[in-house]
Amino acid sequence: MNIIEPTLVLDAGKCRSNIRLIIKKAEDSGVIFRPHFKTHNSLEIGEWFREEGVKKIAVSSVRMAEYFADGGWDDITIAITFNLLETDKVNKLIRSGKKINLTIDSPETLRTLLKKLKYPADFFLKIDTGYNRTGMAVEKVDEINTILSMASGSRLRFSGFLTHSGHSYRAGSKEEILDIYNDTISKMDFLKERFIEEYPDLLISVGDTPTVSIAPELTGVDEIRPGNFVFYDLMQYALGSCSEKEIAVVLAAPVISINEDRKEIVIHAGAVHLSKEFITNVSGIKNYGRPVLLNSTGWSNMSNDSMITSVSQEHSVIHADDKFFNSVSIGDVIGIVPVHSCLAANLAGNYRTIEGLVISKNRN
Amino acid sequence: MNIIEPTLVLDAGKCRSNIRLIIKKAEDSGVIFRPHFKTHNSLEIGEWFREEGVKKIAVSSVRMAEYFADGGWDDITIAITFNLLETDKVNKLIRSGKKINLTIDSPETLRTLLKKLKYPADFFLKIDTGYNRTGMAVEKVDEINTILSMASGSRLRFSGFLTHSGHSYRAGSKEEILDIYNDTISKMDFLKERFIEEYPDLLISVGDTPTVSIAPELTGVDEIRPGNFVFYDLMQYALGSCSEKEIAVVLAAPVISINEDRKEIVIHAGAVHLSKEFITNVSGIKNYGRPVLLNSTGWSNMSNDSMITSVSQEHSVIHADDKFFNSVSIGDVIGIVPVHSCLAANLAGNYRTIEGLVISKNRN
Repeated sequence: MNIIEPTLVLDAGKCRSNIRLIIKKAEDSGVIFRPHFKTHNSLEIGEWFREEGVKKIAVSSVRMAEYFADGGWDDITIAITFNLLETDKVNKLIRSGKKINLTIDSPETLRTLLKKLKYPADFFLKIDTGYNRTGMAVEKVDEINTILSMASGSRLRFSGFLTHSGHSYRAGSKEEILDIYNDTISKMDFLKERFIEEYPDLLISVGDTPTVSIAPELTGVDEIRPGNFVFYDLMQYALGSCSEKEIAVVLAAPVISINEDRKEIVIHAGAVHLSKEFITNVSGIKNYGRPVLLNSTGWSNMSNDSMITSVSQEHSVIHADDKFFNSVSIGDVIGIVPVHSCLAANLAGNYRTIEGLVISKNRN
Repeated sequence: MNIIEPTLVLDAGKCRSNIRLIIKKAEDSGVIFRPHFKTHNSLEIGEWFREEGVKKIAVSSVRMAEYFADGGWDDITIAITFNLLETDKVNKLIRSGKKINLTIDSPETLRTLLKKLKYPADFFLKIDTGYNRTGMAVEKVDEINTILSMASGSRLRFSGFLTHSGHSYRAGSKEEILDIYNDTISKMDFLKERFIEEYPDLLISVGDTPTVSIAPELTGVDEIRPGNFVFYDLMQYALGSCSEKEIAVVLAAPVISINEDRKEIVIHAGAVHLSKEFITNVSGIKNYGRPVLLNSTGWSNMSNDSMITSVSQEHSVIHADDKFFNSVSIGDVIGIVPVHSCLAANLAGNYRTIEGLVISKNRN
């Protein structure tokens, strides 16, 4: 592949196939597909979605909204509880003709927005279905009603209830992920039933890749906002969200040192390329990524008895099985299936396809 | 401070004081001070070192060497086992008049370099003093001798033995860090004694911030290469390497959500700003950073009973004590003392001083 330094390699074919598969699933289920673009954060990859008919997207910061708005995306959900200090930026986006959907989870945020927002926008009320990060608890029906009443007749139009069941990333099995999906749906549908009469257009929007990938049918929701599925990664593979052949990125990394006694391979690629995300195996050992061999059409299967056991700023140490160890020499470039592709992608300056094309991305 | 989004805030006064203190320690001990520039990775901050008389630096990649060479630095140690695939880049750096010191830990790397390196360079032999990442084991005296003999009379001049006792970052106490320092010195001095007759100019170069900060005197070494001390961070504070008032960076982050029931504050700032580095407290809880209140001259003391307990891509959840919880509202900007400033700095596009100046940095 003619790579000499740490480089995030993208299999464009797998990536486009992942996009098509999830679009088909959304279509089959009759739900709105609003992909989260935070994982790839690239206008070029965004075009692959546009070619498949996608028009609505989600992002995780106002900066990211600005980047994709500049790239011609017109319907953008800023799927993070709104940062009030960025209201002026949102005013500019709306004034320029963009449909911006905000996320709100408190009367304080709504009250300030009602004062400072100059143009009409839609908003989702963020609901906590068990992740315990942001969002109103489902039971707080009276408080939810108070917030919706505050917005009634204002510039801020209520679009529906939005959640991110991020606790699915900590699940131990596919069954547990399905349980989380079903629990999420039942909580969201409880709210829908309660408020549908007053707000007949309200949508239920759900977000995480594991449940959306694993649930056989997407019933009980109106909109899905997965993001990670575009690349998948080792964590999603471990959760059962994807097969190995659906993982669309590996970090290519030069081998700089080999320790025969410990059967360890050291690569130039560390926390500034892979992040420090890990998964823990059954013996409690932290796994920061699995190695593969690169070839002209992509990469080999993962070496399932080899893994990165420690990561520092620019180095990682791979503890390798005999087969993988014996197939690698100093000066080779090998691949690492990242534990969390969102973070590896964020750290990369750009992507490089197997064919050698450079795909640019937002670095903000 | 007029900050509206996640921003790495630098206290320039503390940073310059950290630089001066470690220079004084090096001078008092009579050792060469070769700061590692990977932590700040900024030509502007590099100038603060130059103003104090520093002329030699260390970096952790060829890209970083190119950045600082372009900025006028002439004596650069690339303190990572050399990536052979970047030999052409190093040839260019040396041809342009830079003194480049490479790091080698195997006969394979040396053999290839002897073929491909077109101009004279110095090299350090990397020694493993217990971190078990890269480097030759101290006991392998015969193999070390073989490598040095291979280089003898070639373009590659042996500068000395280099180590990074990174296991000091995992130490449980100051005493343990001192033990690691003393063990490192005794191992390195064993090699020095063995080889000094044949290589009378050989240097012993050591690197990590904890041992260099904590050792009362830097005896038994010729050169120190700490990096993190320029900012310090929560990990170094926990290790005892610095006092709280020496920590020179905090991440400023907008408060976007508050949960009264759980006494939790959610900020817009996550793994893409802080990294996923954590320290574990005595009860086994992961701490991803401690909050402070920002003010016109910097920031308050840390809230010692408050900490970030979970980090996702763009959010972090702070579990706060009553005092901190009650002093924060949605729409405020608070500070986070990062666990690992090297990684938080790498993730930042630039630094902003308390006075509002933007300090640029390398993003490669």
